[in-house]
Amino acid sequence: MREGDLHALIAAANDRLPKGVMIPPGDDMAQVAVAGGSVLVACDQVIEGRHFVPNTPIELIARKAIARNVSDVAAMAGRPLACLCAATLPSDLPESAVRALTAALQRHAEDFGCPLVGGDTSWHGEPGHPLQLSITILALPHATGRVVRRDQARDGDVIIVSGALGGSFGADGLGHHLRFEPRVRLARELVDHFGDRLGAMIDVSDGLGRDLDRVARASGVAVLVEGDRIPVQGGCTLEQALRDGEDHELAFTLRAEAAEDLPAILAGVPLTIIGRARAAGDLHQVGARVFLAGAWHAMGSMGWEHGPSAGA
Amino acid sequence: MREGDLHALIAAANDRLPKGVMIPPGDDMAQVAVAGGSVLVACDQVIEGRHFVPNTPIELIARKAIARNVSDVAAMAGRPLACLCAATLPSDLPESAVRALTAALQRHAEDFGCPLVGGDTSWHGEPGHPLQLSITILALPHATGRVVRRDQARDGDVIIVSGALGGSFGADGLGHHLRFEPRVRLARELVDHFGDRLGAMIDVSDGLGRDLDRVARASGVAVLVEGDRIPVQGGCTLEQALRDGEDHELAFTLRAEAAEDLPAILAGVPLTIIGRARAAGDLHQVGARVFLAGAWHAMGSMGWEHGPSAGA
Repeated sequence: MREGDLHALIAAANDRLPKGVMIPPGDDMAQVAVAGGSVLVACDQVIEGRHFVPNTPIELIARKAIARNVSDVAAMAGRPLACLCAATLPSDLPESAVRALTAALQRHAEDFGCPLVGGDTSWHGEPGHPLQLSITILALPHATGRVVRRDQARDGDVIIVSGALGGSFGADGLGHHLRFEPRVRLARELVDHFGDRLGAMIDVSDGLGRDLDRVARASGVAVLVEGDRIPVQGGCTLEQALRDGEDHELAFTLRAEAAEDLPAILAGVPLTIIGRARAAGDLHQVGARVFLAGAWHAMGSMGWEHGPSAGA
Repeated sequence: MREGDLHALIAAANDRLPKGVMIPPGDDMAQVAVAGGSVLVACDQVIEGRHFVPNTPIELIARKAIARNVSDVAAMAGRPLACLCAATLPSDLPESAVRALTAALQRHAEDFGCPLVGGDTSWHGEPGHPLQLSITILALPHATGRVVRRDQARDGDVIIVSGALGGSFGADGLGHHLRFEPRVRLARELVDHFGDRLGAMIDVSDGLGRDLDRVARASGVAVLVEGDRIPVQGGCTLEQALRDGEDHELAFTLRAEAAEDLPAILAGVPLTIIGRARAAGDLHQVGARVFLAGAWHAMGSMGWEHGPSAGA
């Protein structure tokens, strides 16, 4: 079973959820009503051999585990609140490594504004099992109450991506995916700056192709990208920018009339217009497509599918 | 490294946590301030070969994964709100099993009042890896705002346990640990009934010995248990009742003057007074002890330690 099929299966039960679930499964985070307000929540895991190579420093494993969850908070324009970690450790992990891991998780969680408030640790029965960290993150909505979803792109919206994409894993597996800065500040300033003119947003975790296709399908629109506008990380190909994933930049849409107010750089991060959303109909099918070498290509199959046959 | 040492390591950073963390790591759940209220949060995992035997029906694996988290909610007298699941699946798990697991998680989460609102699924790179579910649960405090902690036992409190203990795993691994009813309603009625006369509470997950010792140490008191008063599950020994764990009954304390108001049964569950808390000092050391066969025995080393050398 592929991850996309599993997501569809989970979302099929969304109409049974109680009213207090304000954003159901399917976005970067769920939103749940609490007292007079609400809380955003999501979880994401990192597994040795899949999300990081075995010789990755403990310090950077901990950082990645937290940072990719903080990136989900950025995608909703939220404010990190707290996190929890369920860890499964190889039985032969030295005590010094367990101590270093715990300290690194605590420090990075603090630095990202979401102190570690709970967790659970298990040890594998036999040595050599992969180290695994599952992080749950809690966040508050932006101070205005606005939560930016992935299903709010509309006909005419311009499509924007932050930073540059591609090659995050690195030749040795020790690349940018271990050190990226989640775009929490950028997302907050986008809401401050554009308010309701900000449409949909997602973080680029599984590749721009796959993630923009998710925005398109959730919103029921066509997303049309001009390949030569995509900002490509130095030393990478356009193909890598579309497929690699784990960039943890933001892709978002702005209402057409807001496009001219877009600064070239916001919160220190370059912003690039790469395409437009169009209403689905006779002319355009729902989904994301990119214009490359004189032809349109479906973007949904580009990128990282977390199925049993997918590699890291 | 043993789990107890790890807990101490984590708790050592508690004084660095911001004010919004109202209950820090160390209790069954953490409590975090949100808008005008607060949310309780915890996570707990089940791993094949450790928390359930390999031939356990998928349906019961899902139930246990959710129910043990709901039991943490009961321990705080909270109201289940929502849950998330990070799953790691063997790459050769049939699609039908993935579907059955998803449906079972959704159904049990709904039944326990904490709808599944998010998650993450990874597949192990190779077949044969253990199936693993890490559940995070969110809860609201009791309607009065009272959150029952484990560190509020005081000199003179009576110690009470619900239900009967021991043998939860069963000879074939398919016992009560897969079917227990988390004591959410009992906990709520205890707060309704006793209010501030309810002292400390914990759910019995790692064995009565170890869990009462946690209450004693968190509260800084001695907990003195009369062995022959402990309610033992039919077919089990007193030793099993003290050590086995995974009963998911509640152990709690009541102020001395409230003891005479204790009903024999509340919310359908029998309640048994098994001992008393005493101030620590020259006479009594901090910690839990049980009187058995004419002598006092330390309870802290009885029960299930989740260290690398512990078996399931």
